[in-house]
Amino acid sequence: MHERDVVIIGGGVIGCSIAYYLAKRGARVTVLERDLFGSHASSAAAGILGAQLEMDGPGPLSELCLKSRSMFPDLASELYRLTGIDIELIRAGIMHIAWTPEEAEMLRHRGALQRSRGEVADWWDRDRVRSLEPAVSDQIEGALYIPRDSHVSPARLTRAFSFAAELLGAEMIERCEVTSLRIEKDRVEGVESDRGTFRAEHVVLAAGAWTVTLAKQLGVHLPVVPMKGESLAVFPRRARFERTLFAEGCYLVPKADGKVIVGATERGGDFTEWVTTDAIRCLTSKAVRLVPDLAESTFIRAWASVRPSSPDGLPYVGRMGHYRNLFVATSHFRNGILLSPITGQRIADLIAGEEVPDIEPFSPNRLLSDDSSQQ
Amino acid sequence: MHERDVVIIGGGVIGCSIAYYLAKRGARVTVLERDLFGSHASSAAAGILGAQLEMDGPGPLSELCLKSRSMFPDLASELYRLTGIDIELIRAGIMHIAWTPEEAEMLRHRGALQRSRGEVADWWDRDRVRSLEPAVSDQIEGALYIPRDSHVSPARLTRAFSFAAELLGAEMIERCEVTSLRIEKDRVEGVESDRGTFRAEHVVLAAGAWTVTLAKQLGVHLPVVPMKGESLAVFPRRARFERTLFAEGCYLVPKADGKVIVGATERGGDFTEWVTTDAIRCLTSKAVRLVPDLAESTFIRAWASVRPSSPDGLPYVGRMGHYRNLFVATSHFRNGILLSPITGQRIADLIAGEEVPDIEPFSPNRLLSDDSSQQ
Amino acid sequence: MHERDVVIIGGGVIGCSIAYYLAKRGARVTVLERDLFGSHASSAAAGILGAQLEMDGPGPLSELCLKSRSMFPDLASELYRLTGIDIELIRAGIMHIAWTPEEAEMLRHRGALQRSRGEVADWWDRDRVRSLEPAVSDQIEGALYIPRDSHVSPARLTRAFSFAAELLGAEMIERCEVTSLRIEKDRVEGVESDRGTFRAEHVVLAAGAWTVTLAKQLGVHLPVVPMKGESLAVFPRRARFERTLFAEGCYLVPKADGKVIVGATERGGDFTEWVTTDAIRCLTSKAVRLVPDLAESTFIRAWASVRPSSPDGLPYVGRMGHYRNLFVATSHFRNGILLSPITGQRIADLIAGEEVPDIEPFSPNRLLSDDSSQQ
Amino acid sequence: MHERDVVIIGGGVIGCSIAYYLAKRGARVTVLERDLFGSHASSAAAGILGAQLEMDGPGPLSELCLKSRSMFPDLASELYRLTGIDIELIRAGIMHIAWTPEEAEMLRHRGALQRSRGEVADWWDRDRVRSLEPAVSDQIEGALYIPRDSHVSPARLTRAFSFAAELLGAEMIERCEVTSLRIEKDRVEGVESDRGTFRAEHVVLAAGAWTVTLAKQLGVHLPVVPMKGESLAVFPRRARFERTLFAEGCYLVPKADGKVIVGATERGGDFTEWVTTDAIRCLTSKAVRLVPDLAESTFIRAWASVRPSSPDGLPYVGRMGHYRNLFVATSHFRNGILLSPITGQRIADLIAGEEVPDIEPFSPNRLLSDDSSQQ
Repeated sequence: MHERDVVIIGGGVIGCSIAYYLAKRGARVTVLERDLFGSHASSAAAGILGAQLEMDGPGPLSELCLKSRSMFPDLASELYRLTGIDIELIRAGIMHIAWTPEEAEMLRHRGALQRSRGEVADWWDRDRVRSLEPAVSDQIEGALYIPRDSHVSPARLTRAFSFAAELLGAEMIERCEVTSLRIEKDRVEGVESDRGTFRAEHVVLAAGAWTVTLAKQLGVHLPVVPMKGESLAVFPRRARFERTLFAEGCYLVPKADGKVIVGATERGGDFTEWVTTDAIRCLTSKAVRLVPDLAESTFIRAWASVRPSSPDGLPYVGRMGHYRNLFVATSHFRNGILLSPITGQRIADLIAGEEVPDIEPFSPNRLLSDDSSQQ
Repeated sequence: MHERDVVIIGGGVIGCSIAYYLAKRGARVTVLERDLFGSHASSAAAGILGAQLEMDGPGPLSELCLKSRSMFPDLASELYRLTGIDIELIRAGIMHIAWTPEEAEMLRHRGALQRSRGEVADWWDRDRVRSLEPAVSDQIEGALYIPRDSHVSPARLTRAFSFAAELLGAEMIERCEVTSLRIEKDRVEGVESDRGTFRAEHVVLAAGAWTVTLAKQLGVHLPVVPMKGESLAVFPRRARFERTLFAEGCYLVPKADGKVIVGATERGGDFTEWVTTDAIRCLTSKAVRLVPDLAESTFIRAWASVRPSSPDGLPYVGRMGHYRNLFVATSHFRNGILLSPITGQRIADLIAGEEVPDIEPFSPNRLLSDDSSQQ
Repeated sequence: MHERDVVIIGGGVIGCSIAYYLAKRGARVTVLERDLFGSHASSAAAGILGAQLEMDGPGPLSELCLKSRSMFPDLASELYRLTGIDIELIRAGIMHIAWTPEEAEMLRHRGALQRSRGEVADWWDRDRVRSLEPAVSDQIEGALYIPRDSHVSPARLTRAFSFAAELLGAEMIERCEVTSLRIEKDRVEGVESDRGTFRAEHVVLAAGAWTVTLAKQLGVHLPVVPMKGESLAVFPRRARFERTLFAEGCYLVPKADGKVIVGATERGGDFTEWVTTDAIRCLTSKAVRLVPDLAESTFIRAWASVRPSSPDGLPYVGRMGHYRNLFVATSHFRNGILLSPITGQRIADLIAGEEVPDIEPFSPNRLLSDDSSQQ
Repeated sequence: MHERDVVIIGGGVIGCSIAYYLAKRGARVTVLERDLFGSHASSAAAGILGAQLEMDGPGPLSELCLKSRSMFPDLASELYRLTGIDIELIRAGIMHIAWTPEEAEMLRHRGALQRSRGEVADWWDRDRVRSLEPAVSDQIEGALYIPRDSHVSPARLTRAFSFAAELLGAEMIERCEVTSLRIEKDRVEGVESDRGTFRAEHVVLAAGAWTVTLAKQLGVHLPVVPMKGESLAVFPRRARFERTLFAEGCYLVPKADGKVIVGATERGGDFTEWVTTDAIRCLTSKAVRLVPDLAESTFIRAWASVRPSSPDGLPYVGRMGHYRNLFVATSHFRNGILLSPITGQRIADLIAGEEVPDIEPFSPNRLLSDDSSQQ
């Protein structure tokens, strides 16, 4: 029987980040991961920190994304000093490509919105885009250039969070299956697992889609939508480019080892982690359309993962239902890597008893329903 | 200084087969392979034994292919007894698919030709094809069904030849670079390599495209055309089929471990062994067109290799130029696996001094020219 | 809401075999697999069918192992005809090696026991062993030679069972997480999962160690002990041998593709599926001791898996507790591949209402206890 | 027929570095690589920049190593700006471990020597070593701590050199086999290859052991000794350390992605690139001895490569024989990564007609002999 301040269920980038920020505050933390740390969606992402890319209007998600993006430069140094792991933060900007006049119009509108909020976002016509990135197709309309959006290595970020948390005293347990929560009135007393019982002052659910199953035991329904994403990596021969290229249905991220990640399909409701032949067909077709010389690039490998989403597109970050000491952090969809630092920090603040107004819009209670109405 | 009966330069499926048939006759044989046995085209092939598939008219190549195909059943048993390696001979037949009435007409004509020579080859219309293989597209015109064509595992065949040769006393040397041939009048005295000099009674060049370079040292030009082929393997989910499906630009081979091999591009003059993104795009598109449910198959991996070809499409098998003891066996293009047993056996016969009339049409001398006319 | 005759929880070799034998009888079967079919212990095994190897005295487990071993030759043909998958049954026998006079004495005793029950098992001294397998160390004492024990490819066997079941109408679902059983008095009404509810006439638990967690929900404790095993594959250079070599702490299985599998560590209580550096150190040391020329073999890869075991060393196969329609098949430890055919067949018989006396000793009820006594 | 200023034969880290420094000077350069850039020793190294580690006395090699080490910080920035590739320069220092009093005495002596030449090198006793790196065995005697030695990613360095050279106009050709040199009196007129003839003002041989074969064609013998090295990568669980640990027969390099490289065997005269089971056994044993908790680390993979060496242990860098326009750069053995920048720069200087006194001791002419005396 272990006695801990906080038990975190789920060792993806979100669970590991929460462990890290709690351990920095001195909490005794345990993370229980069913498989390996970061072995699913966390390490399969492309790592785009697209705070502006995802910004299609004012709102709390945009604010949170911008705040989290701003944490990365210091975080990268901090994690490197602690763990020796370089998370490969590349601050080369993103070009959000328009193929049609309609897309161009929409992106110019977005650019104006972003500038009005103090961000940099410039519309570039085809010639300007191609003067900087000659590899881009001459069929594009133009691009919204977002210099402050960046990217990291998701696998390294997750590993660095988990190493750093462990170095600061967190107990990091892989291959541990949580079987149930022990409830006592409005409190979670502990967590049952195939490695025994863990008693805890606070419990955090950061288990992606699996969070649903645990929530069911509490008699509530928390809707999490699985969104499968398939990606591939290629090695450019003739065509090289420096900035991330983001277009409808296809993005290209040039990483620090010279590879380009081509992402990603979005298949709702599919829990499988294999790569379909059709995904390969679609992604290679779109990549070659966007950067024609990629036809001659070397294909390296392909992978798939399932990202948790939510019906309203917002993550769940906050206190769960009417339980005093139960927290949720999941369903970040495409923004899990980007939002991992702020999610970790805010959940740590919340557990420490602080007011955290900027995550109130993400309370899981907004969509929580009585489970008896399901089925 | 080694003294051998025969030194074979090249340890692909052809070189290893020659070594095997020579060792069976009791010859003291050495094989010198620059990389690993079967590490290039030999293990990257799909292993189709398409003796009739390649038969578009009467001629010596068709005869040789049919003879070699007939050797496989006994060879499979023989190699298994000697080495414990199962070469996975699958005798399920091939369906040569027609997409258009023109292709159908051409295949019906071929079928008639093959039947007139005693082979089995039946034209099946779309419905009959789909009654046996329901996974095939309903857009096809029909197929020529060739029940006697079969397939093996190329990697295992090469390994089995090399193990069996070694067990029968052959000296099998990997990572050995041949640097030159020692010529004395009309005889090759020996072979120089980075592991020393090998003296031999007879020398066989079975080094694919590299054969050209060695031939140059003899002052002759033997034209070998590199034909790069890219392939991939998928794992069917819904769609399963038993017979090899062969269509314009795409074939699908169901192997004994449940995987399907999708092959192959043909890029002349390309020596590279990487897989291009465009090849992936083409092969996945064609595979999904031929068997629509393969869209949902699991993508496993892709690979590339360079197959040696010749200007007239025939392999080179026979005595080289005016040298008494120098032999060539290369440029089998798509038929290297199929022709490996008979090539091995016939070269062994030739070295033993026998008459081998059926390989006379493949004499390298037919295309050999004085090297001084090159450049 | 699906209505099925039988729902099987777990898609390893055991669950897939049960599905196959049920589907052959015409039952409407669904298999729910949390990950991929055969993705854990089933495909990581070496595939030894060591019915006599495990026989250290008379008893029901030995009987069951012998019966199951005898099913393989027909099963191999049957599965090949149905699926095109060759399970690579290699009937070359096993040499159980003794390093010391004490081990020799013990093995001679075992041989006598086996012969008294009609099996073939001959003691061979060092010279006789080495005359047949010259690669074996000259430091051994001798070996018990068991010609009838054989081996298969575990990955192919599992795949063939799952394909064959599906072809016969079974519904095979991967990436499906079972969350609870619906109990109504002494009956299981159905199975809840993240893909919805499955109602069934009968339910089979074949989920390895995870079976424990499901049993807990029924208020009973079924002890399953995880036994991690680490293995590696090498490719012999000089040293080749035909028979499986089995010694204390290390076995060597020559497979049909020319590789040798070196197995296996046994670490009780370890759920992780990574390979430790220490396992690599131990296995390579022991393999080189047993066949010295393996020092020069090529290292290919290493892997780990967790096999479910039980406190008394017997599998659980039979009806579960006092539930009328709930069955268990798990904890086969080292004999999962060997026992898969008979386990599948007997569970199918039991569900069909037949008497199956030979599995009575394996009833899970023998070790089942009230869960309230746990913790 | 191509007309180039310089043709470089060999696209390892040395050839690519030379191409980079020449292209920076504006030269029209072509690199001909038989396989892929950096596909052999260059990418299989651990990337230690051990200028002091290799310093066992005063001498020109030590000087060259120190100068080259000092080039890396600026080079890393320069290559990153040009190519977006981060070569992962980690400046955490090396601990050269002593297991015995004799080794300790030798290392203290070396430390004194290095300090006398202005370098930092401190003897630390066991307790001090373990206070900074608690993972190190308590059986060591102590360590010479060398803070300025560092490491990079060899694969990334080679790729960055080759990308950067290409961006600056170099022609980079893979899968191109050089067959002979065209000699005209004391000049090399050009290079014959399977892709045609390349005429050049200057030719550089940077082809590792293959250099020997080309030299032979010039009638000279340049002795290059192949030294096979086998390495593996593990992922630490409990044991983490920041500094490179270097001991007799085993070094441990913690890389920027959290992995540890364990290197390396040294097998003279072995050209093969496979990993032997015995190498795995030796390296895992030594790694676990040095850092006992590595027993529980996760084994990731193993690899092998062949490094070119020379009889006197010095690389060959300079003008070749009596040819006016032929240069050699090879046989850097363990220091290929470390010496790549200065080798590239100095060869570029030499070709530009400058005086380069610091490479005079490395002239290939020191060991060149008339080839007729060989064999």
